[in-house]
Amino acid sequence: MMSIIPALKWRYATKRMNGVKIPKEKMDIILEAISLAPTSFGLQPYTIIVIENKAMLEKIKPIAMRQPQITEASVLLVFAVWDSITMEKIEAYIAQIAKEREVTVASLDPVKDRMAEQLKNSDSDNLIWNAKQAYIALGFALVAAAVEQIDSTPMEGFDKALLDDVLQLKEKGLRSMLIMTLGYRDLKNDYLANLKKVRRPMESLFIEIK
Amino acid sequence: MMSIIPALKWRYATKRMNGVKIPKEKMDIILEAISLAPTSFGLQPYTIIVIENKAMLEKIKPIAMRQPQITEASVLLVFAVWDSITMEKIEAYIAQIAKEREVTVASLDPVKDRMAEQLKNSDSDNLIWNAKQAYIALGFALVAAAVEQIDSTPMEGFDKALLDDVLQLKEKGLRSMLIMTLGYRDLKNDYLANLKKVRRPMESLFIEIK
Repeated sequence: MMSIIPALKWRYATKRMNGVKIPKEKMDIILEAISLAPTSFGLQPYTIIVIENKAMLEKIKPIAMRQPQITEASVLLVFAVWDSITMEKIEAYIAQIAKEREVTVASLDPVKDRMAEQLKNSDSDNLIWNAKQAYIALGFALVAAAVEQIDSTPMEGFDKALLDDVLQLKEKGLRSMLIMTLGYRDLKNDYLANLKKVRRPMESLFIEIK
Repeated sequence: MMSIIPALKWRYATKRMNGVKIPKEKMDIILEAISLAPTSFGLQPYTIIVIENKAMLEKIKPIAMRQPQITEASVLLVFAVWDSITMEKIEAYIAQIAKEREVTVASLDPVKDRMAEQLKNSDSDNLIWNAKQAYIALGFALVAAAVEQIDSTPMEGFDKALLDDVLQLKEKGLRSMLIMTLGYRDLKNDYLANLKKVRRPMESLFIEIK
């Protein structure tokens, strides 16, 4: 397999998209990459809302600073995280591990106890912790998309409370944290498409201790 | 280019490594992937400490729950984030953009003003924001390593204050957030190496709005 570097250099935060639909097989790869992202304890404390519905995208656009790529994209992903960690969720996960790895639930007690430590934290601290895990999954989605030559835009700039309302996330125990469009760049209208990618020099970004 | 999915399935949080050194060209790819990770405004509000020094790794091991992979790895990466966002940092970044894209600094005033909004937040809020950006970079590093068939272990389980002391990060305006080992799995001694990867079912992880 070739290095992923050329794909990562090709990627940029696409501000204008051309409305073309992404083939299902490519979408499947991006979603599978998200599902393979690691999280603390493997809890995957989030749900991703996959939105293709044009009416819904029109509703979301004003909530996300009217960015045109929201409605020009093929798909919008909303990374919504658990609003709390509960014993119920931990136990469901432990039961799943026991089943898939063919071990007893009791044998997983030490793992469960370590996870349960998290319950000592406040919901607001756990919300931040869950959000951080979602950023790893976002990273996986961005790389997977780039390798498939699908354009993407990661976005924090939207009204979380309004988006939670529109998608009825609170009722599901979820809070929106990140959104990401997927589609194809509109080269003619995107001012960013041809701008040089600016990055901190490697010698400033990294400190080596040999 | 082939899909990255097989590499992502091969990846797991490696608990034991065999001490073998990673070739420089593969390390360069992983570090370049980190430098290409997107961040809010492109600020890259972190520095990554790249540690190969064995004495230093021995010092860090007790700070990180004595996990054996710390000293069995070829390299340990410490993702350390800016402890604050300052006008000075923003202006340095704006100056770099102006130079690399051959535009005037004044033409970037609107961009600078939007970045400066961030200064209204408390340092502790910005620390969380910076940390989230580092999690994206961690995601990029994990995928890049997997594609290069390099094993890795992302870790949150370490004493941040102690690690900051050992690496003198406070003096540099940095706070450790994440660590990650890179190396090669020790198949014989790693209980996790052959365990089935457990993931939430796709129909639970994703909600589609068609």
